[in-house]
Parts: sequence; structure tokens; C-alpha cells
Amino acid sequence: MKIVAAKKILQANDQLAEENRGRLNDAGVFCVNVVGSPGAGKTTLLEALFAALKGRLRPAVIEGDIAGSIDAERIEKLGVPVVQINTQGACHLDAAMIAAAAEGFDFDAIDLLMIENVGNLVCTAGFDLGEHLRIVVLGTSEGDDKAAKYPAIFQGSHALLITKADLMPHTNFDAERITADMKRLAPEAAAFQVAALKGDGVAAVADWLVGKCRTNATGH
Amino acid sequence: MKIVAAKKILQANDQLAEENRGRLNDAGVFCVNVVGSPGAGKTTLLEALFAALKGRLRPAVIEGDIAGSIDAERIEKLGVPVVQINTQGACHLDAAMIAAAAEGFDFDAIDLLMIENVGNLVCTAGFDLGEHLRIVVLGTSEGDDKAAKYPAIFQGSHALLITKADLMPHTNFDAERITADMKRLAPEAAAFQVAALKGDGVAAVADWLVGKCRTNATGH
Repeated sequence: MKIVAAKKILQANDQLAEENRGRLNDAGVFCVNVVGSPGAGKTTLLEALFAALKGRLRPAVIEGDIAGSIDAERIEKLGVPVVQINTQGACHLDAAMIAAAAEGFDFDAIDLLMIENVGNLVCTAGFDLGEHLRIVVLGTSEGDDKAAKYPAIFQGSHALLITKADLMPHTNFDAERITADMKRLAPEAAAFQVAALKGDGVAAVADWLVGKCRTNATGH
Repeated sequence: MKIVAAKKILQANDQLAEENRGRLNDAGVFCVNVVGSPGAGKTTLLEALFAALKGRLRPAVIEGDIAGSIDAERIEKLGVPVVQINTQGACHLDAAMIAAAAEGFDFDAIDLLMIENVGNLVCTAGFDLGEHLRIVVLGTSEGDDKAAKYPAIFQGSHALLITKADLMPHTNFDAERITADMKRLAPEAAAFQVAALKGDGVAAVADWLVGKCRTNATGH
């Protein structure tokens, strides 16, 4: 009985996600779901990305957090439109939350909607939000075994973004191991290494995102 | 209706957790639930702790992971009895899983049962496993805002264990900020800083655990 209920919720979520995607497409807004552990560096990545995207894409952000508005305040300081979702205990965002949050934006003034999901490498995997791309963010300090241990979230992602590359010399992180695991789980996925606080590697991610936005807008 | 079901599950879990605790007390086994994000350094902490506890306590481990047995293999190499739970997608351990896993041990040969929960700073908070203590592990590379953003897991913990202290100079982690947040959420909780790969600070945690085991065994 419990399984049926869960399936129903997922079906309802998938339908809402498709509606979100349709609305985003109609408005010409490209949407990215950013997932990763707590402290993987998702907000810091967004901050660095928006600097690199200046004059190329007009971004906006939906911040998902259990409680508080720490991340939204950081984004607001950049002059980027932001809506904070407080899940009040829930461990992931869902499509209904995104539909509600999206009403807070003027889609005519946006090209790129970044959704920063709740910090969670498990529960975020099962919920399509209506995004066009999902990026999984992993800090070098988290260890190179995470794709092997949390396969679902890596499998469904379109890019692996290794953050905190500048900490790598101080850790036992083996970038080749995680990249090989990712290749097995998601052969088509892109892979990047960045040190977002220093800006290293961010330009390549920005270029890739701009390319993806354009491809989506023109349909090829 | 959904809320009622969730409550029922939690009630059932709480009852099973009490039964686990009773069985552990009867056997004189002290039990610790170790929680934290993926890659917080839980397994590395256990490895370092067992070296520091040699000859003082006889440990065993229950490893909780979505998939695989990477962590259990690491523990097994130390000659410490270990049972791996594969949750097959589930985002936290529960008391029923612990009851089943505990049957794999000879309780007469154990003083300390460490449970390494699934890497998850959200969902693990709601599930008593029957442990005597819960330790929340947070790496300095995860950022000092995590207690503010994920309050429930910190609130219910008996110690904050800041790992990767050796990375602190390379990050913007402010130990005073997280310690102050923890103090607000859990005024009685202990706090430690360790660099487990180098062994720094591990002896203090080991001494604290030995003290807690003895207090529990003698009832004061």
C-alpha cells in the first residue's frame, strides 16, 4: 500500500514537472537543477557562475532549504532575482514547490533559472522539477567514492561538477576514479573541475551553460 | 492521511528503537549513531577512533549505505566486526534495520557498537535507532552555516565532531560560528575538532567515548 502511494506521488510530481517544463519553454527560460551534499559548494558555484555569465545570460535562482534564507541572501547581494523555498523539514524540492516559487519571477526578464536543491545526495534524485538539465556538484573534500555509494543521483545528471579543486592537493581525492565511475553511470555527462572561490574553471562551465541554453532555444 | 501514516511509522520505529536499546543494555553494549553528510569523514573517523581505542573497548560497526560495501570493507581490514546494511535507495537507517543487523554480532565480544548512518544531514534526524548517543560529524570543508541550515540533526545530537580540521586554513570555515549555533541548538552537547587522517584530536574523542561507556555501564 505504501508503495502505491509513493508511486502516485511520483506520478503526480512527473506530471507537474512536465507542466513546469512546458511553461519554461514557452517563456524561453532555460532551467538547471543543481544537486549535491550539504556544503558541496552549490551557492558558491552560483555566485562565481553569475559573475562569469554577466552580459550573456540573465539569471534567476530558486533556493531550496530546510530552514532560513542564508543562501537567498547571498544571491540577492549579487542583484540576481531569487525566491527562497523553506521545505520545513522536507529533504528535497518537488515540482509543486517549483511551480509556486516560479510565480515570483518575471519570466520576460530571465534567460536562465538555476534551482539550488536541498543539500541531499539521496532524496533529490527521484524528483524531476521540470528542469532541462541536472548538475551534480561534488567537493573534492567529500571523497572520490561518492558516485559508487550514491549512484542514482549521478546516473540521472547531465554534468558532474567537481568543486573545491584547490583543496585536492590536501586530500586523498582521485579525480580519475570519480570520473570513471561517472562515465559508467552517465556516459553522456559533461565533467568539470572548478575552484569557485578563486574563479578557476568557472568560465568553462559558463560557456557550456550558454551553449546548452542556445541549443534549447533553437531546438538543435 | 499521509501524516497519520508517517506518525504510525515513527511510533513503530520508536518502539523498536526502545527494544534495541533494552537489548543493548542487557548485553552491556554501548551504542553510538554517527550521522553526517556524504563525505563528512565518518568512516575515516571510525578508523582513527578504533586505533585510539585499542585495548580499551572492543568495537563493532554497522555500516549503512544505499549501495555497495566500500565502507564495510575498510572497517573489516581493521579486524573489527562489521555488518553492512544496503538500504537500496532508502535515505536513512531505521530501528528495524538495526535489529536485523545486530543479529550478526556476538554481543559478548563487544563493548561499543558504532552505527555509521547513510550520508544524509536531513532524513537521519527523525529516526531513533536505539543508540545511547548520537554524534553529528561535519567537515570544515562543508561550511560553518550547516547547523543554521539543517537544525534538526544538530539539535538532537550529543556531540558535534568537526572533522578535516587540517583543511580549515584552506577554507573560510569559522569554528566559532558553528560552535555558537550548536550551543544554541544543543546546549549540553560536547564539541571536538579532529583531523582524523593525521590522528589529531582523536584521543580526546576516544577518552570521551570511554567515559560515556563507563557511565552507562555503571548507571551514573
